[in-house]
Amino acid sequence: MQYTKPLAKLIDQFQKLPGIGPKSAQRMAFHLLKMPLSEVEKFAGVMIESKQTINYCDVCYNLSSQNPCEICSSDKRDKSTICVVAEAKDLIAIEKTREFKGLYHVLQGLISPLEGIGPDDLRVKELLHRTTDENVKEIILAINPSVEGEATSLYLNKILKPFGVKVTRIAFGLPMGGDLEYVDELTILKAIEGRVEF
Amino acid sequence: MQYTKPLAKLIDQFQKLPGIGPKSAQRMAFHLLKMPLSEVEKFAGVMIESKQTINYCDVCYNLSSQNPCEICSSDKRDKSTICVVAEAKDLIAIEKTREFKGLYHVLQGLISPLEGIGPDDLRVKELLHRTTDENVKEIILAINPSVEGEATSLYLNKILKPFGVKVTRIAFGLPMGGDLEYVDELTILKAIEGRVEF
Repeated sequence: MQYTKPLAKLIDQFQKLPGIGPKSAQRMAFHLLKMPLSEVEKFAGVMIESKQTINYCDVCYNLSSQNPCEICSSDKRDKSTICVVAEAKDLIAIEKTREFKGLYHVLQGLISPLEGIGPDDLRVKELLHRTTDENVKEIILAINPSVEGEATSLYLNKILKPFGVKVTRIAFGLPMGGDLEYVDELTILKAIEGRVEF
Repeated sequence: MQYTKPLAKLIDQFQKLPGIGPKSAQRMAFHLLKMPLSEVEKFAGVMIESKQTINYCDVCYNLSSQNPCEICSSDKRDKSTICVVAEAKDLIAIEKTREFKGLYHVLQGLISPLEGIGPDDLRVKELLHRTTDENVKEIILAINPSVEGEATSLYLNKILKPFGVKVTRIAFGLPMGGDLEYVDELTILKAIEGRVEF
């Protein structure tokens, strides 16, 4: 005998979460058993409620309990700029800077021939549709510089250009606080390529 | 705006789990939103069910959905030996070796004057009561060698001795695969003190 049965089931559930191995799952399970029942019921309720109320925005495909989402329906956002990201979590990362005031478009993935993911599996069609709006002046590609990210950026640039819209990419270079001595060569190369007048 | 409200609530709940910071909580929340609703409902159900069905065993204070627990009610366990541990997770760690065949007693904490935890806050009285059973021949203290653990072990040894029962402690020394060069001095000292005839 090791775990009593409901405990084994609970640990099993926690292990399904990303980055959680058997040890962390056990720690979480024991923690949960020490919480008051009311707290556990609240936790379980929030899980189900969030799943039931959060959906994709029909305009930008961000996660939201509103449709269109808070950003798309805000009158404080600049509707001439669309920032394209791969996932909702990238949107959150950009929102945290509190600097970007435009709209977003979440692709819900990246082109990956190896995994059989093509443009039709992403929200590319929907992006093209939004680009036909004449108010859209600039599309910023804020996509990670991975193999899949590069492929997706190149593809989007190619199909967006004919619309006569300005397509830009976020800069790649030395991170703030980074050190030339320790950063990889590709980053240095990108930093030199992307140099701007001082 | 950053997170849509139910998402912020969900991330908040995950952050209450031990060892989970804002980044991990966000990752878990996004993962949960990608799970099918049926899976999320199952997860939430297991949380509440485990909390409702798992309780402390009235004999050894292990966590169990039975009372007495699976170990205390098993006829395959040696009832003459009681292994004393601080927490239920320590019991699990020992059970995983599949070697120990006796019973357990979970103290539910350690003596800690700094935190105001004395013997009366632990399951010490209950251990003494079990020790009065004349079938109990040996009490093994399997308690971590921390300051609180040492204080608790010394205290238990003192109050158990008058019962005429054999009180032993698990060995402290070099861990298997450990290296004398890298292990701390206190461990080496304990390993030398605890040397056994070859």
